[in-house]
Amino acid sequence: MKAHVYVTLKTSVLDPQGQTIHNALRKIGFGEITAVRQGKYFQLSIADGASREAARSQVERIARDVLTNPVIEEYSYRIEE
Amino acid sequence: MKAHVYVTLKTSVLDPQGQTIHNALRKIGFGEITAVRQGKYFQLSIADGASREAARSQVERIARDVLTNPVIEEYSYRIEE
Repeated sequence: MKAHVYVTLKTSVLDPQGQTIHNALRKIGFGEITAVRQGKYFQLSIADGASREAARSQVERIARDVLTNPVIEEYSYRIEE
Repeated sequence: MKAHVYVTLKTSVLDPQGQTIHNALRKIGFGEITAVRQGKYFQLSIADGASREAARSQVERIARDVLTNPVIEEYSYRIEE
């Protein structure tokens, strides 16, 4: 089983890295892009024996407690068979 | 319209950052996680006027030519209405 975790800055937090990419894209002609936000992506492989429920609860805890800084970031995840 | 771009290291490329997270997870009791790979995640906002086809082609070019280092990375993306 695989889990995909996405960690992004909260929308209220400035994202200078995304802003820089956005400026660069505009300069090289991608004018239709109106904003860029950068985040982190984690791919977790989960042992085959684990039930889907157990996997979901582990991934939730890992995303919330380990991978995300709750002051400035938020997370989402997706579990794939 | 929004596009989500995921850039990951090719599987043949070592990922010390992911490995470090994996070791940390094992130490704090998440034994069912068998591997962690870290990547980057980009959220692109696309001007409302753009057609889905134009958006797809722009995002494909941005992902391939700007956001990914083709020597060590690969990308995927998803476009959302």
